[in-house]
Amino acid sequence: MIVVKIGGAQGVNLPAVCKDISALIKEGQKVVVVHGGSAETNEISTQLGHEPRFVTAAQGGFTSRYTDRTTLEIFAMVTSGKINTILVETLQKNGVNAFGLSGVDGRTMVARRKEAIRIIENGKIRMLRDDYTGKIESVNADLLKMLLDAGYTPVVAPLAISHESDALNVDADRAAAMVAGAVQAEKLIILTNVPGLMRSFPDESTLISSVAKKDLEQALGYAEGRMKKKVLGASEALDLGVNSITFADGRVEHPIVDALSGKGTTIS
Amino acid sequence: MIVVKIGGAQGVNLPAVCKDISALIKEGQKVVVVHGGSAETNEISTQLGHEPRFVTAAQGGFTSRYTDRTTLEIFAMVTSGKINTILVETLQKNGVNAFGLSGVDGRTMVARRKEAIRIIENGKIRMLRDDYTGKIESVNADLLKMLLDAGYTPVVAPLAISHESDALNVDADRAAAMVAGAVQAEKLIILTNVPGLMRSFPDESTLISSVAKKDLEQALGYAEGRMKKKVLGASEALDLGVNSITFADGRVEHPIVDALSGKGTTIS
Repeated sequence: MIVVKIGGAQGVNLPAVCKDISALIKEGQKVVVVHGGSAETNEISTQLGHEPRFVTAAQGGFTSRYTDRTTLEIFAMVTSGKINTILVETLQKNGVNAFGLSGVDGRTMVARRKEAIRIIENGKIRMLRDDYTGKIESVNADLLKMLLDAGYTPVVAPLAISHESDALNVDADRAAAMVAGAVQAEKLIILTNVPGLMRSFPDESTLISSVAKKDLEQALGYAEGRMKKKVLGASEALDLGVNSITFADGRVEHPIVDALSGKGTTIS
Repeated sequence: MIVVKIGGAQGVNLPAVCKDISALIKEGQKVVVVHGGSAETNEISTQLGHEPRFVTAAQGGFTSRYTDRTTLEIFAMVTSGKINTILVETLQKNGVNAFGLSGVDGRTMVARRKEAIRIIENGKIRMLRDDYTGKIESVNADLLKMLLDAGYTPVVAPLAISHESDALNVDADRAAAMVAGAVQAEKLIILTNVPGLMRSFPDESTLISSVAKKDLEQALGYAEGRMKKKVLGASEALDLGVNSITFADGRVEHPIVDALSGKGTTIS
């Protein structure tokens, strides 16, 4: 079992990714796909006159999308409605019986809503209370296995449902990690628009080809921007029993073949 | 088994519909929900600068949405991404383990794409070739039954997949009819923003409370605008073995309870 996470950032070669997934499935491999949608959510939010806004957490310094209810609904439209449908359609054109869902459907991913987030704004700490984001606590592995056993390839959009049954925006990298753990995947491949983790970003000659679990803390130090969450996701996936996590380039002709042959950064 | 179709037109009381569905399920009833999304697709298309356009078929005189690829993607965003997610979320808040999907997922609804449509424009007949609409030919009942048997309530968005694996916009009333036939539903309830079929629309005192199958042709004569497709859908559902189809008011406090108690127009 392999979990493939397809980045929401621009540049990923979607037809090539779907072709590689199709080849894997024809070899008898089981695959679960998890995708993002950040870049396109920004575009469509802007077109709809609801400019995207990002906030920086007071603790840890992570940057995340500020998701009021309007943003949540745009995020659902773009990720679950557009990107998910196009991915399923493209996989179907490649002979894969893909089945799209989000974590809201059948409570596939249950998350704890962040009631209040401490953010830094103009150097000051303040609380944000109307945010619809969450941290995934459980994945309905039975549902995913039921679909897989019936011959469907699940394609998961990064929405979860809260304990109070509100739809929530969740980080897609960490969602992929949780899904990989839940379905006991051997490998998690995280496709993005860079070749992997670099010692000094964006110098590609400093690509790190492998990181041992004990060196993850150090690796987190090299990570810039969104790569930080990918490293965190990798760490969570290892803890959940996934053997290896590869950050690989999704822009190339054979993104998954390359990742499986050792290109990119493998964490194990 | 009951199939409930929730109209895409404005005015349907969604919280009330979900509450009624929840009560039915608690009584042990199995329910499949099918929904539309036309009104909101128009709004968001307009906001995105891609004005909705409707065409009139040369034969039959039916009006339908002109769906170029951009419109199809907006239709998918709104129906499968926004309306479907909100419906699933609202049902989940009412204790129903709802599961959203569209006909693209797992090829749940396979349709024949209309390669070319003869339309009337400014009094002239012309052909339209880049339209992504279709007529449903088959419904994957096994998949819907698998979800129902596992305790999930399917909520179906009106997209189908073509034989060539293109996503297509399909008429939600006729989708509901096909789904009701496939899952061998006893009843199909079509909720809309009028009290039912009227002998002289919009005079509600002329509401027709029941129509026998043999009088369907006559009923089609009374139907105005979108009600025509609902009558056609009802006719198809009867042919597929559904016992009765009720057109009922979705704006009231107990839309489904009322429909089951004989309000609206029942065709059997």
